[in-house]
Amino acid sequence: MEDLIHKLRAFAKERDWERFHSPKNLAMALSVEVSEIVELFQWMTEEQSKKLSPEKIQKLKEEIGDVMIYLTKLADKFGINLVDAAKKKLEINEKKYPAEVVRGKSKKYDEY
Amino acid sequence: MEDLIHKLRAFAKERDWERFHSPKNLAMALSVEVSEIVELFQWMTEEQSKKLSPEKIQKLKEEIGDVMIYLTKLADKFGINLVDAAKKKLEINEKKYPAEVVRGKSKKYDEY
Amino acid sequence: MEDLIHKLRAFAKERDWERFHSPKNLAMALSVEVSEIVELFQWMTEEQSKKLSPEKIQKLKEEIGDVMIYLTKLADKFGINLVDAAKKKLEINEKKYPAEVVRGKSKKYDEY
Amino acid sequence: MEDLIHKLRAFAKERDWERFHSPKNLAMALSVEVSEIVELFQWMTEEQSKKLSPEKIQKLKEEIGDVMIYLTKLADKFGINLVDAAKKKLEINEKKYPAEVVRGKSKKYDEY
Repeated sequence: MEDLIHKLRAFAKERDWERFHSPKNLAMALSVEVSEIVELFQWMTEEQSKKLSPEKIQKLKEEIGDVMIYLTKLADKFGINLVDAAKKKLEINEKKYPAEVVRGKSKKYDEY
Repeated sequence: MEDLIHKLRAFAKERDWERFHSPKNLAMALSVEVSEIVELFQWMTEEQSKKLSPEKIQKLKEEIGDVMIYLTKLADKFGINLVDAAKKKLEINEKKYPAEVVRGKSKKYDEY
Repeated sequence: MEDLIHKLRAFAKERDWERFHSPKNLAMALSVEVSEIVELFQWMTEEQSKKLSPEKIQKLKEEIGDVMIYLTKLADKFGINLVDAAKKKLEINEKKYPAEVVRGKSKKYDEY
Repeated sequence: MEDLIHKLRAFAKERDWERFHSPKNLAMALSVEVSEIVELFQWMTEEQSKKLSPEKIQKLKEEIGDVMIYLTKLADKFGINLVDAAKKKLEINEKKYPAEVVRGKSKKYDEY
């Protein structure tokens, strides 16, 4: 991960692209790349989405790579560690949705 | 990262929530969480987006945590390693936009 | 529609909010509002999404209202007529996907 | 608008595509098309976004057409009138953000 962060900094610096990479713009780019993942799945059934062909998995991997690039760049602007942020949020969710309460009932999902 | 993946698997299993987590649904959830990041920045100027208050950075960290959670889950469904996917995509981009060609010219961005 | 456009112009003017409404920002706001529609459907099955409760339909109507507000505002900035834009695009699609060719074969969707 | 609704119904029926158009899928398609609008603006400054070239405006019109198509289809599934939904939401906003209170203060936007 550290290595990725350094490579991303060097990539933008060598191209003089940092000036385009305000957090506002990175947030937009992140949402555009996520939509390319959504596009992959939009007309599939849920079952079909579970059984992708090797070509689709390769395509998904590239789109996930793009999302990860912009997510890492955005987090790096504010010194946020991605894995740490996810773990902290997961701890919050564990308290919000206790397993013994929501199990089987799917509390969260029944709202929908 | 490995530890996060295991925690996420356990979290869903303990709540019997895996049945909601088809790749199609995870892609939708990922896009919804990314929009919460976009929402943070939508009315800011680019300059304002560079200087967030500690409260906004904390809020951003939580939203980034949510995005990272769904991105990790989606990648895990297909055995995709997030950092590896980003590095592979970065190598593709390095060939597509050679520093010596695009530097100063901002080829990619002038299209926009 | 004309009436809506005039009301939206007056609403922003009375509040001195036009300065926030650059096309870039309106595009971001549009994407945030669309995500609230996606959020409504994200954990539903396709079948469930067809049979919404009256409360969910009311909620959907409000979210669609928000999307329509930002879409109308963005189009108004460039003198674009929404219904005309949709009809023109539909004509392009009719030529791109001729009924006699794609019928039954679902050409477009089989790509996915 | 009525004419557009009828044309969209006929378009899908002639191609036997209605089976792909569950509200869940339409919501996903809507978000993908909105991202193509966001993509147009992502690297522009706010000022640049106000002065699009004729080619960019034409491109924007096509993307807005796509968004309007899916928004109209989704609303049609539940008998929702787009202009009416926007007006109703605008009335709610007028009460939520009274002009005499928020004017100059930009209450809503200062949260960000």
